[in-house]
Amino acid sequence: MNQKTALHAFDQAVALESVGTDTFCGRSPEAYANMVGPYGGIIAATLLNAALQHDERQGDPISMTVNFAGPVTDGGYQVVASARRTNRSTQHWFIELSQQGVVAATATVLLAVRRDTWGDTEVSMPHVPPFESIDRLDIGRYLTWVKNYDFRVVQGHFDPGGAIEDTGDSLTRLWVKDLPRRPLDYLSLMAISDCFFPRIFVRKQQRMPVGTVSLTTYFHADRDSLARQGDRPLLAEAHAQRYSQGYFDHTGKLWGEDGELLATTHQMVYFKD
Amino acid sequence: MNQKTALHAFDQAVALESVGTDTFCGRSPEAYANMVGPYGGIIAATLLNAALQHDERQGDPISMTVNFAGPVTDGGYQVVASARRTNRSTQHWFIELSQQGVVAATATVLLAVRRDTWGDTEVSMPHVPPFESIDRLDIGRYLTWVKNYDFRVVQGHFDPGGAIEDTGDSLTRLWVKDLPRRPLDYLSLMAISDCFFPRIFVRKQQRMPVGTVSLTTYFHADRDSLARQGDRPLLAEAHAQRYSQGYFDHTGKLWGEDGELLATTHQMVYFKD
Repeated sequence: MNQKTALHAFDQAVALESVGTDTFCGRSPEAYANMVGPYGGIIAATLLNAALQHDERQGDPISMTVNFAGPVTDGGYQVVASARRTNRSTQHWFIELSQQGVVAATATVLLAVRRDTWGDTEVSMPHVPPFESIDRLDIGRYLTWVKNYDFRVVQGHFDPGGAIEDTGDSLTRLWVKDLPRRPLDYLSLMAISDCFFPRIFVRKQQRMPVGTVSLTTYFHADRDSLARQGDRPLLAEAHAQRYSQGYFDHTGKLWGEDGELLATTHQMVYFKD
Repeated sequence: MNQKTALHAFDQAVALESVGTDTFCGRSPEAYANMVGPYGGIIAATLLNAALQHDERQGDPISMTVNFAGPVTDGGYQVVASARRTNRSTQHWFIELSQQGVVAATATVLLAVRRDTWGDTEVSMPHVPPFESIDRLDIGRYLTWVKNYDFRVVQGHFDPGGAIEDTGDSLTRLWVKDLPRRPLDYLSLMAISDCFFPRIFVRKQQRMPVGTVSLTTYFHADRDSLARQGDRPLLAEAHAQRYSQGYFDHTGKLWGEDGELLATTHQMVYFKD
């Protein structure tokens, strides 16, 4: 057995090879194929990985914004990650993914060394049935990337079979974890922050051409939070705020199974109706 | 009277002079001074202005993320704005502000040409007393930049005099408009999206060292929305989600006086307690 087959599909997907100053090579992961190109969450995690495996890395993720500028096609890509400013405890990155010299995604990342302070959470994890009590999503009817997750939809399902009517809002709550099991880290948390079906699918209960154009995730989890969470399921929730002239936003939260708010996330999505 | 004195303070503050390919020069606006350097919202608007006045500009703002990498000091700065990818209807920018070769802020901006689609808003403007019925914020007790806005706090005040106790949450609702009057445009909407006092000031009712590290705004308003809003007050609301180890996030909404959701906005803020 070679080393590659021993790696989790997620780790294979986000792998980058250093090929020069600030420059890495990677390859579109077939296991995470989406409508066009790979699942956006896996591209986001790959870009974050460029900063985290860079020699100059200092600190852990605080925030990341990824802009999806065009389709990522099959085959290889180049990722350039540049630390634009390093302070005593913070570091700001600009990262860009390109194929044949054409930019397909850009990202900014803030890393920081965290320290103890007063803390509090002003929002509450909703009361929902436990992960084990809910049937697993029947992945056969969804795109390839969905096979890498165990989804248990609590509320706000999208049924591509058309069995649900427009309910007037797009709030979804679901349990999600990597499949096969994998302990949560910053990379998988970033990837999962894009795991929501497009809110307009839930709202209208129909597929249409869509694409996330900008995704921002704020990391509240530190390394201890990640270790406590391990490979247990996360509770993910999101709802749209406004749909207007070809774009809608959503705002979401990712909770650890024990009720800790691990990340908050927002995105703007293109749609064509 | 020369032309400069005829310009609104806001337009003076965000002004940039083109000095070469992708490169502009500007100057820290004293009228918008904050604790350290200028008000973040005016820096954000200035960076957006670089894309909007660039020869290659195509479309109107859909989303913007600004990362504040270090203090902007008095004096001049350089802004470099580069269109990383231009598609048929979308355009992705990377923008960087530096002083003496040191990066102080980075930003990504998505512009797009909007077109008519189905639309809806899934959140509702809260019922609040009208702007005229609320006393204007006594700006004498706040920092310089506050003088450029007419703030009317509906709920969730920060009183630097210590007259309010910790209320257990940080939700603020306030009316805000430029002072003197100025019709709303994308630049002023971007600036106002940073107008909230740090949530931890509201929560703890005390000042402490803080600084926004990353700010994202999604624009739902098109040109017609901006024209309808004109120079009327906006209703702005925001609340923190989690404070942890030196950072907290907030999520906010900016409503037109007529109840239209003009923008949604999020930020991650450093604090030292």
